[in-house]
Amino acid sequence: MSDVKEILGNYSSDIIKTIEDELSVITPDNLQEASIYLTKAGGKMLRPALSLITAEAVGGEKENALKAGSAIELIHTFSLIHDDIMDKDDMRRGMPSVHTVWGEDVAILAGDTLFSKAFEIIICSQGTTSEQNNQALATVADACVKICEGQALDMGFEDRYDVSEDEYMEMIFKKTGALIAAATKVGAIMGGASSEVIDAMYEYGRLIGLAFQIQDDYLDLASDEETLGKPIGSDIAKGKMTIIAINGLASAGDDSDKLLEILKDDNNSQANIDNAIEILNNCGAIEYARNLALESVDQAKEVLEILPDSSSKQVLCDIADFVLERHS
Amino acid sequence: MSDVKEILGNYSSDIIKTIEDELSVITPDNLQEASIYLTKAGGKMLRPALSLITAEAVGGEKENALKAGSAIELIHTFSLIHDDIMDKDDMRRGMPSVHTVWGEDVAILAGDTLFSKAFEIIICSQGTTSEQNNQALATVADACVKICEGQALDMGFEDRYDVSEDEYMEMIFKKTGALIAAATKVGAIMGGASSEVIDAMYEYGRLIGLAFQIQDDYLDLASDEETLGKPIGSDIAKGKMTIIAINGLASAGDDSDKLLEILKDDNNSQANIDNAIEILNNCGAIEYARNLALESVDQAKEVLEILPDSSSKQVLCDIADFVLERHS
Repeated sequence: MSDVKEILGNYSSDIIKTIEDELSVITPDNLQEASIYLTKAGGKMLRPALSLITAEAVGGEKENALKAGSAIELIHTFSLIHDDIMDKDDMRRGMPSVHTVWGEDVAILAGDTLFSKAFEIIICSQGTTSEQNNQALATVADACVKICEGQALDMGFEDRYDVSEDEYMEMIFKKTGALIAAATKVGAIMGGASSEVIDAMYEYGRLIGLAFQIQDDYLDLASDEETLGKPIGSDIAKGKMTIIAINGLASAGDDSDKLLEILKDDNNSQANIDNAIEILNNCGAIEYARNLALESVDQAKEVLEILPDSSSKQVLCDIADFVLERHS
Repeated sequence: MSDVKEILGNYSSDIIKTIEDELSVITPDNLQEASIYLTKAGGKMLRPALSLITAEAVGGEKENALKAGSAIELIHTFSLIHDDIMDKDDMRRGMPSVHTVWGEDVAILAGDTLFSKAFEIIICSQGTTSEQNNQALATVADACVKICEGQALDMGFEDRYDVSEDEYMEMIFKKTGALIAAATKVGAIMGGASSEVIDAMYEYGRLIGLAFQIQDDYLDLASDEETLGKPIGSDIAKGKMTIIAINGLASAGDDSDKLLEILKDDNNSQANIDNAIEILNNCGAIEYARNLALESVDQAKEVLEILPDSSSKQVLCDIADFVLERHS
């Protein structure tokens, strides 16, 4: 796992430099500072690194995917800024979130600016044809629509306890998976891959994106507070419909009513949270989620078989495993 | 003037149909409804019509600019939705604004969705080359960055009474002029114009955009309440630094202090507002603004001389005049 983090680190300096250069021309100063803040606050740079690694894995140059990958990171940052406003999250990456520092108005604008810059950057991609740039741009625009739809779906799940697994899977694909899939797809596009390989790399990204989100749900119950940086079972406390809660409600038999009662309760005791975790363990919902994530990762690695062997292909394989090896 | 409104009306049905088709696939329903709401509420469709008319005026087909023009209207709508949130404006186009109906969270998302869709639509332009689509997209992305910068500048002007004319002109160009300039530029690009003509059409759009905004400032003092739909002098009441206020503070001599005092006052009597208008009239600030708008329109019409004579060229000429003939 540390190898993957090290490899991502090798790609991140070029990406951060590209982003900082592109954002350095924004005026006035407060808009520039608010726009660049979360990049400076640090991030794994997983998505843009995936673009660069995929470009190499399909036989292209990582430099050709540098602008498109950086654009993907800007879109990710834009969505974090606007989501934090909507979700009233005051912290992000261990620091006060953008709207906490500059207020909601500047935060809305900073998100919009990053969004605009992302498209501007892709169009300026070098070493690629207009057709490639167009295709990369269409891919990113499609992912952006899906991110908005996914966030709207997620907000619509609040106070609903009859969310189906299909609805949940659609939501996490749109909210999280679509941009990761776009990252690997634009890597393939900018790397000059065939349409068959481009489609395969989208599927790879989609599958690890799903595994990533399901792992998030799993860690909320299977990690420990110190590693996770927040209390275990916080999703249950919030009454959030995760894949585990959805499966639990469907499979816990007589315990379903008790589980539902705890999910609906705004002021659960620790004993209640522990009770819910026990129910979810007993009915196999936690194991179900873990298996779903494992299957997604296995499928993602199978998809990679379309690529010729290379060190970059191996890195993509390791990243798929890394998604499930992380503990926070 | 009614001729221009009629001509714009001839273009608007194709544009509205394109927009409604593109937005009809958005899910969930509340996001789709919030996204399409302001288009259904009606609008002059000035910007997209300018794209189509410009495409014809440079010798191209208006159909080739239909998607790019519709995208420009979506960007305009996106900026209205987000601006209304920031400015806490509860009404728009005679109806409750998007955030008033669906709440701020959905309004933020609806804006983001329109933004994403705009880029998706341009990329799908038909009858044009990838290079043209790329160039149109870069033009729109550049305008989007400027819109955000312009809004940030405008917000930074609040409680500042030393705004210079240059600062003001930069703000209105970015906030209003840039997208109108982008509308005429993408029309020229999609119509297959030479780079010299493309640049000229950007300049034409920039100039009528400036005139449009200055006319807004002028109407606040020179129209009447019934026509304008709001009280005369409301910019003065709000202490807004319009071109007229800026020029007045610089040229009213001994009356400048009184003018400044009124601008800073949050609870002006009607007598104070009338006094400010008198000062602005006497020092020539109102006339100054009117002349500035007239000069911009004259320059815009001169720029059009690069085009061969045609009915579409005449329409562009009429639209330049229309900007100053409107009373609300």
